[in-house]
Amino acid sequence: MKKVLIAGATGSMGKQAIRLVEKRADCQLVAVLAPTATANTELEKTVQRFDHLSAVETDADIWIDFTTPQAVFANTKFALEHHMRPIVGTSGLTADQIKNLQRLASEKNLGGIIAPNFGLSAVLLMKFAQAAARYFPEAEIVELHHADKVDAPSATAIATAKMIAAGRHKAEQKSARDAPRARGANYDGIAVHAVRLPGYVAHEQVLFGGPGEALTIRQDSFERSSFMQGVKVALDQVMNLTELVVGLENILTI
Amino acid sequence: MKKVLIAGATGSMGKQAIRLVEKRADCQLVAVLAPTATANTELEKTVQRFDHLSAVETDADIWIDFTTPQAVFANTKFALEHHMRPIVGTSGLTADQIKNLQRLASEKNLGGIIAPNFGLSAVLLMKFAQAAARYFPEAEIVELHHADKVDAPSATAIATAKMIAAGRHKAEQKSARDAPRARGANYDGIAVHAVRLPGYVAHEQVLFGGPGEALTIRQDSFERSSFMQGVKVALDQVMNLTELVVGLENILTI
Amino acid sequence: MKKVLIAGATGSMGKQAIRLVEKRADCQLVAVLAPTATANTELEKTVQRFDHLSAVETDADIWIDFTTPQAVFANTKFALEHHMRPIVGTSGLTADQIKNLQRLASEKNLGGIIAPNFGLSAVLLMKFAQAAARYFPEAEIVELHHADKVDAPSATAIATAKMIAAGRHKAEQKSARDAPRARGANYDGIAVHAVRLPGYVAHEQVLFGGPGEALTIRQDSFERSSFMQGVKVALDQVMNLTELVVGLENILTI
Amino acid sequence: MKKVLIAGATGSMGKQAIRLVEKRADCQLVAVLAPTATANTELEKTVQRFDHLSAVETDADIWIDFTTPQAVFANTKFALEHHMRPIVGTSGLTADQIKNLQRLASEKNLGGIIAPNFGLSAVLLMKFAQAAARYFPEAEIVELHHADKVDAPSATAIATAKMIAAGRHKAEQKSARDAPRARGANYDGIAVHAVRLPGYVAHEQVLFGGPGEALTIRQDSFERSSFMQGVKVALDQVMNLTELVVGLENILTI
Repeated sequence: MKKVLIAGATGSMGKQAIRLVEKRADCQLVAVLAPTATANTELEKTVQRFDHLSAVETDADIWIDFTTPQAVFANTKFALEHHMRPIVGTSGLTADQIKNLQRLASEKNLGGIIAPNFGLSAVLLMKFAQAAARYFPEAEIVELHHADKVDAPSATAIATAKMIAAGRHKAEQKSARDAPRARGANYDGIAVHAVRLPGYVAHEQVLFGGPGEALTIRQDSFERSSFMQGVKVALDQVMNLTELVVGLENILTI
Repeated sequence: MKKVLIAGATGSMGKQAIRLVEKRADCQLVAVLAPTATANTELEKTVQRFDHLSAVETDADIWIDFTTPQAVFANTKFALEHHMRPIVGTSGLTADQIKNLQRLASEKNLGGIIAPNFGLSAVLLMKFAQAAARYFPEAEIVELHHADKVDAPSATAIATAKMIAAGRHKAEQKSARDAPRARGANYDGIAVHAVRLPGYVAHEQVLFGGPGEALTIRQDSFERSSFMQGVKVALDQVMNLTELVVGLENILTI
Repeated sequence: MKKVLIAGATGSMGKQAIRLVEKRADCQLVAVLAPTATANTELEKTVQRFDHLSAVETDADIWIDFTTPQAVFANTKFALEHHMRPIVGTSGLTADQIKNLQRLASEKNLGGIIAPNFGLSAVLLMKFAQAAARYFPEAEIVELHHADKVDAPSATAIATAKMIAAGRHKAEQKSARDAPRARGANYDGIAVHAVRLPGYVAHEQVLFGGPGEALTIRQDSFERSSFMQGVKVALDQVMNLTELVVGLENILTI
Repeated sequence: MKKVLIAGATGSMGKQAIRLVEKRADCQLVAVLAPTATANTELEKTVQRFDHLSAVETDADIWIDFTTPQAVFANTKFALEHHMRPIVGTSGLTADQIKNLQRLASEKNLGGIIAPNFGLSAVLLMKFAQAAARYFPEAEIVELHHADKVDAPSATAIATAKMIAAGRHKAEQKSARDAPRARGANYDGIAVHAVRLPGYVAHEQVLFGGPGEALTIRQDSFERSSFMQGVKVALDQVMNLTELVVGLENILTI
């Protein structure tokens, strides 16, 4: 039985993580950390509640973190120091902080995972796109988001472009310097197009073309609840990880 | 029985037009014009063959033109002057030439049609997009073509953007001056994205978004043979047209 | 200024209708009917609250109904008898009841609208599909819904098939008696396929094919909030309607 | 330099294979076998021509076969017996014949490949679908083909369903006995839908759904020329294969 502590337990993701852990036969929720000490009255009596990191005292094996960019580094450090394996869905860790945490995990002989995106469909899309690029070096990305998203293209689309570029045997650099604007942005030789429309949530499409045929991979995130599927995979594997992995794609087997 | 002359009878489109006319019960192919006097040996004996415009002598009712930008104006003028109703799929007529031909058609009391795009799916997409814009003012266009197409976006996509803009009650001008390149080109306030990949032929997608829902219209042109469906519609209606119409969309009823 | 009463004001749709009416400059919310007298404390003081139909006394011009199959007939009858124009989004009216209400509306010289589906994208899809069928008689429907939907195909898909069949000039009846199951259900000669998968919400696709080309119309309903766009259109037009119309498609202009 | 013989050199696929081999720097076309001794006058003088299997005498390393179901077994046997590595795109080999050929290849210490489908996009789709099924056990297949295809669903769709079923950890058998026809055919617990429309060529879509998200993989075969990309991959690897592999998917690395 894996004992789990959830940090950020009163947020939307934290609440879903609680439900996820409580449903699993192989896990036991033993504690929550929530900065505001709002009592989750529906929690089992056996679950401890802490409202400050400094107050945490627990024998949990796993630390699930859905907190804030401000809190995540101290939290993850604390987890490792107290022999808990972190599953971190909070964004905001810098490259230096991650290196720091990975070193600590190695010293403590602990594995764990830091994943900015726990969406299974998005991560599988990236892995498949990288694999396809070996056979289909010509690719373009169309990502579609709600009209309020301010940045374009999305970070996920840029990451996908990088993975496709890495998957191609040789760089098929299409010069795009003077390309008309309709041809979109160019990341590592891959055209990236961003659609922003009301109604849409978060969707990404990778289009591959070769002589006489096409291959398209698409993912749709309709709700953030989808992230819990990725957390599930992390829970399945975290006790067997031998290092602090960055990116859900690195623990998925395809 | 409508008597038909086909100009450009040895080209790819001309040949398909011959097959189309020969299959119809309400039409009779009476003559062809083909600059090179290559005898189409498979043509019925009753079909006259001319190799110069000056040689044409015929009692045809309809002149179908799939020739060249150089020939099309003289051809269409000749058709009208000799009381034939033109169905013109040849591109290259200037705005002035079109006006000139329309005046002539009006004098002669003849209808006809000039259509740069005889693809039914493309024309219906444009009409539907214009109609949808009244209820979904937010729209974007993604067009996809083979990698060899040099211009971007396609002329059809630009025409579609114009029709959508006209369909919106008020201009919903999204300023795109400083938009990142991934947001594509901006035509009349509509973002237009162009994908260029091997394998693709000619495809266009219009995406509409509104609160909690989306509407998408897509057309795929897999082969140029699809143009014959539009010629069919033109043949159905040309005897009833009272002017020289420009654009297949203007004789389609939706 | 149109005065509006909302029946079913405490339901999810009713609450959204309240927000919609309050945002419009040309409408004033004057009363709500909600069977349980739960006070909507956030409502303006000028809004009357009734908890029984028998208690309603109002000078409203428009009756918006998002109640229950049990209540909707009596409600709509009451509205017409008291000179209110109904906008009914509640399902469950029988054909007889509708006829009855239409006769009453005609006597009272009132227009209104009964719409089982206020989703603009779904209704536009149906209208476009019907229009396209004139030029593309070959069509199939693929509808996609969440895994919990028990019926297949959806009522909307069946309605769409009927509209496509009506749009075709002549019946292109494909015999499907012995067709393999993979070819789906057959409604009026149109193959209808139903996908049921978790994650999906409510989506419908109509695919048309002709020689060398294809046309596809797709709609996605991500949230029920999308229905409010249809209510908006109804509010725009209800004062000008001269009969009790059934179906949003009959007041949309394409 | 790999020496190549092409059997079925006058067929459409054979002609494309000739062009493919002639373009490669690492291959040399040394002979062709074509039952009708139609001289391919455009072939290099160094290329031998045979019109009967019994006449073939060559030092080729590789035997590419695009012939007929009647000829393929004898051809492949001959190739192996004369120390050539077969790349077979001809269909029609029975399971027994394949076993027979694999035994012979093993005796002769030769590798090769027999692939009923050399389309890269179709094969990648199958591999990705199998990989995705581990994380998304709920899947459905929609395949789309031209109206003249008589069987439904396609063999490729059935093969894909089998691969998805194999990719799921445990059988998620949805009972479909009494499912309405719109729910399609059921292969190994996966609903398979077949669309048949003019204009379409050969397309397949696998749809995966999970809580709050969806993943879709689609492939489009616009022309049979696309098969040459798979032959290319086979040519790259055939000299290193240690057995007679069946299925392009088994030599693709993802």
